[in-house]
This record gives sequence, structure tokens and C-alpha cells, in this order.
Amino acid sequence: MTKLANSFDTALRERASRVVPGGMWGHQHAAKLPEGYPQFFSRADGCRVWDVDGRPYLDFMCSWGPNMLGHHHPEVEEAAQRQARLGDCMNGPAEAMVELAELLVDTVAHADWAQFQKNGSDATTTCVTIARAATGRRKLLAARGAYHGAVPWCSPSLIGVTAEDRAHILLYDYNDPESLRAAAEEAGDDLAGVIVSAFRHDLGRDQELPTAAFAQAAREICDAKGAALIMDEVRAGFRLNLAGSWEHLGIRPDLAAWSKAIANGYPLAAVTGREWLRKAASQIFVTGSFWCGAVPMAAGVATLTVLRRDGVVEHLAAMGQSLRDGLAELARRHGLGLRQTGPAQMPMILFEDDADFRKGELFCRTALAEGVYFHPRHNMFLCAAHGEAEIAEALAAADIGLAAVAEHSRVAA
Amino acid sequence: MTKLANSFDTALRERASRVVPGGMWGHQHAAKLPEGYPQFFSRADGCRVWDVDGRPYLDFMCSWGPNMLGHHHPEVEEAAQRQARLGDCMNGPAEAMVELAELLVDTVAHADWAQFQKNGSDATTTCVTIARAATGRRKLLAARGAYHGAVPWCSPSLIGVTAEDRAHILLYDYNDPESLRAAAEEAGDDLAGVIVSAFRHDLGRDQELPTAAFAQAAREICDAKGAALIMDEVRAGFRLNLAGSWEHLGIRPDLAAWSKAIANGYPLAAVTGREWLRKAASQIFVTGSFWCGAVPMAAGVATLTVLRRDGVVEHLAAMGQSLRDGLAELARRHGLGLRQTGPAQMPMILFEDDADFRKGELFCRTALAEGVYFHPRHNMFLCAAHGEAEIAEALAAADIGLAAVAEHSRVAA
Repeated sequence: MTKLANSFDTALRERASRVVPGGMWGHQHAAKLPEGYPQFFSRADGCRVWDVDGRPYLDFMCSWGPNMLGHHHPEVEEAAQRQARLGDCMNGPAEAMVELAELLVDTVAHADWAQFQKNGSDATTTCVTIARAATGRRKLLAARGAYHGAVPWCSPSLIGVTAEDRAHILLYDYNDPESLRAAAEEAGDDLAGVIVSAFRHDLGRDQELPTAAFAQAAREICDAKGAALIMDEVRAGFRLNLAGSWEHLGIRPDLAAWSKAIANGYPLAAVTGREWLRKAASQIFVTGSFWCGAVPMAAGVATLTVLRRDGVVEHLAAMGQSLRDGLAELARRHGLGLRQTGPAQMPMILFEDDADFRKGELFCRTALAEGVYFHPRHNMFLCAAHGEAEIAEALAAADIGLAAVAEHSRVAA
Repeated sequence: MTKLANSFDTALRERASRVVPGGMWGHQHAAKLPEGYPQFFSRADGCRVWDVDGRPYLDFMCSWGPNMLGHHHPEVEEAAQRQARLGDCMNGPAEAMVELAELLVDTVAHADWAQFQKNGSDATTTCVTIARAATGRRKLLAARGAYHGAVPWCSPSLIGVTAEDRAHILLYDYNDPESLRAAAEEAGDDLAGVIVSAFRHDLGRDQELPTAAFAQAAREICDAKGAALIMDEVRAGFRLNLAGSWEHLGIRPDLAAWSKAIANGYPLAAVTGREWLRKAASQIFVTGSFWCGAVPMAAGVATLTVLRRDGVVEHLAAMGQSLRDGLAELARRHGLGLRQTGPAQMPMILFEDDADFRKGELFCRTALAEGVYFHPRHNMFLCAAHGEAEIAEALAAADIGLAAVAEHSRVAA
């Protein structure tokens, strides 16, 4: 598929290039995607999105995570609209804030309390601030290559960032207990916290589920040092286990940062924490003009209520496994090596012998032309609107995409 | 007015105290307000809010700024709902993002481009990051006591903040060109930028409009050093002058941070900048899960369209002046010294001889019992829904509030 020169997407990109630096910025910049991917979208419904030229896609990015129950989920929309008719951003919160905090405390195993923000970065930064306030210490251990937000202390880019922004960050390697212990040793008696992702989901490499040894080491180090174990659930939260992404390992964090899926696309983030951090959480000063907006809170209550009632996590895992099994079988048939890693409900599809992602890009470009929106380098997301029919539809497009990769490999050989 | 022990607000505070640290946090914590102020709100319309016990208030906080055109403004709501029916948080932005960037570039005098975020803190932090990226330097001059957000580099609290978070911040005094020059001198050839508030609006003290000498000094220092003049318009933006809050002084910044009023309560922030900073803005990495959400963008387009068409700034200034003149006359009649400072559309009301704010709190508490919501220590905000009738209603309540202060002063004397 080639981009039509006279498409509305092209026209919008041209307009944007005049009034937005680089035409777009951040993780949704289409320049980071293969040719043919649209930059602008006109509408969304369930697990489908339409670009501004009216082309529909069966979507496996789910807004990069926020779309959890499907766009326009009737119960979420009804709750949001009911609250919107009353009031959204007022002089203080509405009852929905208390309901949502109660629901989180009841749902998340480690949570004795909750606080709300807007961005995932707000939530991770708040966790670090609380850990420092509670311990009176400064050092934070973070995994090399992990994404915890796009603010100076953790941005993946160092452009415009000073060395001091990261003065107290010590790096370890995910799933490497020894490197974690070495970093803790280096922090000495100045260790405020250890931040861990729910699983390893770095850009452009195989995902890794946490090992029991790593999770235990993180917990033990924090217990031994009186530091806070901070779980970054921004990306994975509510897709693996509503009670917490390390529950299957028997490891609970002291603080967790949530966002993305918490309100099915309405802008919201949350920090949950254990009792010993409550006082520090009440002493720090963090706030934002829209943090108590009642509509996203009401959407969050509805989202969590549906998640608890409908077994959405199990559905996502089953559909993700269907997609994974189907792709593995298709790849075998086409004689292609495919690496599918991490939790099935957050698929990562990488090709063997594809350091420059050319195979992945050809696969995605071809699938996109067939109406299925995959990502060649970033983990993807399933939502509740993905059913067996949608997985079959995705596999039919993937079959054509894999055939294109196989054909290209034959020609190149 | 005393708080009813069995009020729904009290019950919600009790529930919140179990699941939210301190029961509430940030700038909307009612513990910072006089007794009797509600913590929780049930609905809002125009310039009125209702607490969860159903009591209505004529509101002069306007959600601490975001409520600019009145809650449930029909054109904003229609635009937001139309976009919501299509899609909000998708895999990329909608056309509304380009429209809003075009509208900002067309409205804001210094703006050659725009970028969007969620919080005011996101916008100010992004400005600083762009200034550092563009200049390759580190130092930022900021006014002592100014509020630029609630993240570690600028939070009004140092709890949980490290010294390194502020390593490159040098302080000056607002409206003091000499202190600005001294700070610039100290920064030497490492000066990345100077951040200024649209006017001085520090908590609990008289507001100060910028002097021409101060504004010129800020501009000259930045020009001489090749640094970026960053205007924090988060609080004042769109209430003083749509083209920029220093237009009347003939001074334009290089970067500006906007939020609060930009989308009439929908969560949104923006950075605008001049051409020489465009490349740096495209090189830094800043992003958030909800930053391209289309509903707040559509609300922003509608808000700016109404602001440009309806002369809202002039209306706010006129109504603010009516309130100010009326209050001054009432204070004279009651023999009370009142200090009303800053722009009339963002009123600040402080009493003479009231270092502990007891007079201000008694005034506000009494007015609240009469159904008018003032703030004793923070600047307030007018919105387009405040008309002559509402100002008269506010003055009637203020009369009773001032009588209470005068009576209390007589008893105490």
C-alpha cells in the first residue's frame, strides 16, 4: 500500500508541520512507524479505529494501552456522561473519587490507600517522591532501558536533561538479582526505593516476564533496607492481574503507579500504597489542575467494576493466546522464525534475523493494507472487544503479511 | 454556619480518610480553607457549584482557573460531545489537534508553533527542557516564591525533593530588575532560560502586575545571552489578553506554558514557542498516554473560538472591576481596610492588619453561609457566566461578611 498523495492524512500532516514542531511528537509520532501508517484518526469503536481517510483498522495498539474494554463501552460511557451532566472539573472532587479509591483499595492486594493524577509519569514521579519523603533517603534503583515516563528523571532521551536530574538513579538489569544487589550495595544507607516494571517491556526487544528469583530479591532488598518497592503498573496494570502484576509470584510492592487502562481511555493515573507510606503521601505536595476531574473518576469506577465482574483479564489472555498460537502456526507454515514474548494479552512480535526490523515492518505494512493495525517494535495490547472472530480476521491478515515476508526473504536469498 | 455532623460531606470525608492519605491532597484540600467549606461537590453549572449536601454557591474560584466560559457552556459541550461520539484517546491525534495548534498560532502573538500536554506542570517542564535543548545550557532563573507546578524542580514543598532537583535553579525577586540581572550574572554562560509568571500571584500576599522595567530587563537579558524567556501563563492565560499577558508591555516571550482555562475544564495544557525553538521542541522526548486525546482538543478549539469572538476578556475585566469597586465601597462603609491587587478579573482580597488571615477567613466563612464561594488567601477567578446580577449577589453577601469582620474587630478592640 502506498500513501495517497492527496489523502486527508497527508494534508493534515502538511498543516501540522507548520504549527507543530516536527509535525508531531512523542510515542504517537507516525514517523516511527512503517510507511502507510496514518498519523491522524477520525473515529474509534470497540477494537476498531478509522483513519481520517475513512479506512478502518482492526486495532492491536488499543491507544497504546488505554483502550481496555473497547472504545465506547456502554457502561463506561453512561457513567462518564451521567457525571458530565452534573459536573467535571469543580472546586474539589466528587463522590466518584472516594468510590474509585475504595474500589482500588478493595481490588489491589497491596493497596491501603490511593491518590490520583493525570499521566503515568505523574504517578511514577509521585511514587518516587513518597519513597524519598518516607525514608529521608535519595537513591532509586531503576532497570537499564526500562520506560517509567517522559520527564527528566526517567525520559528515554537525554536531550534537554541535566546530569543532576538523574543524580540519584542507580541502574540494574531486569531479572538479574545480582545486578540489583550490587546497585543496592552502591546505594548504601541512602536507598529510598527500587522501581520495577510489572514485566520487562523495553522497546524493540523480546519481552521478559519477571523471574521469581528477581522478584524475591527486589522484595528482600527493600525489606532489609527499609526502602520502598515501587511497581510501575502504568503499561501492564489491569491486563495481567487486577490485584497486582506480581501476585502470581507472591510478591507485593509498597507503592504502585497506575494509568493507561484505569478509566478505559479517560485521562487518569493513580498511586496505590501500603500503610507505612500513608503519612508521607499526605505530606508531599503534588497536584494538578485537572487531577480531581470527576468524569475520568466516574469512568474509572465503571471500568474497574466491569473488569472485576466480567473476567476481562482471562478473556484477554485467552484471545492473546489464540492470536499467538495462530501466528506461531502461520510462521511455521511460511518457514519464518517468530519470537512472541511476554504475556499473551500484551503481544510482542519480533522476527528472527531482523536486527533492522525490516521483516517486522514489511509484515506490519502488509497487514495494515489488509486492515489490521500491528506495531513492529513495541508491545501491543488486547482489549475486551477482541473476540474469536477478530482474532481470525487478524490471522487472515497476518497470513498475507507473513507470506510477503517469506517472499521477500526468498527474493533476497 | 457550622458544619452539620451528619452531612454527606462529613460522611464522604470519613470514607476518604480511610482510603486517601490525609483524606485529600493538593490545592483542593479543604483543610486549607475556613471551617464550613465543603470538600466534595456534586454538580456545577455556569458560575455556580453545588456541594454534596445540595447547597449552591455563587463561585469565584472557577475550579481554580479552568472554568472560563461557565460550566456546561453549550458550544464547548457540543464540540466535546461531537468528538466523543467519534473518538477520544486513539492511536494518534484527530484533526482537532491541528485545528487547535493553528488557532493558538493565530491567537498568541509570539507563537510560531504549539505542542500539547495534560498538566500545567507538564507545560512548564517542557518549556525548560526545550530551553535547555536549544541552548545546550542548564541554568534557569525563577522568581522566589512563584508557583510553576508541583513537580520536584518547582514544587512549593521540599518534602521528598532532593537538592539536585533544583541544582540549576537560580532565584530572583519578581519585579526587581537588579535581582534578575544579578541572577543572570551568576548563571554566566550557562543560562538556558528565565521563567516569569504573567504577574505575581504568590499565595497569601498582594498580587503585583509586572513593571515595564522588569519585563524589559527579562527580555534584554534573554536577548543578550541567547536564552529563552519562558512565560508561565498557566494561571493567567486567556484571562488578561488572548495574545499574551505581556502584550500591553510590548514584551513577548520565546516560550509560554498554558493550561487551566484553555479548554474550559477539559484536561489540557500547551506550550507555544518561537521559530528558533522549533527544532529543539521536535528533538526532546516528552509525551503522555492521554496527551493527544481528541475531546479536550475539540473543547479547546471551541473555547478559543468563543474567547476570540465574544470579547470575554473585556467582560471579565469589567465584571471584576464592578466587584472590586463594590467591595472597596462596602469596606469604606464598614471602616475596614481592604487590599485588592492584581488584575480585576483575577481578584485577590486581603485585609489590612490580618497577618494570620483571621479577618479574611471570617469574611469568607460568612459569605459562604450566604452562598458565595470566595478564597481568603489565594487569587480568585471570574468566568464569562459572571454578570451584573451575579456581582450584585456577591456584593450583598460580601456586605454581610464585612459586617461580621467589622463587628468582630469592634468586640476585639
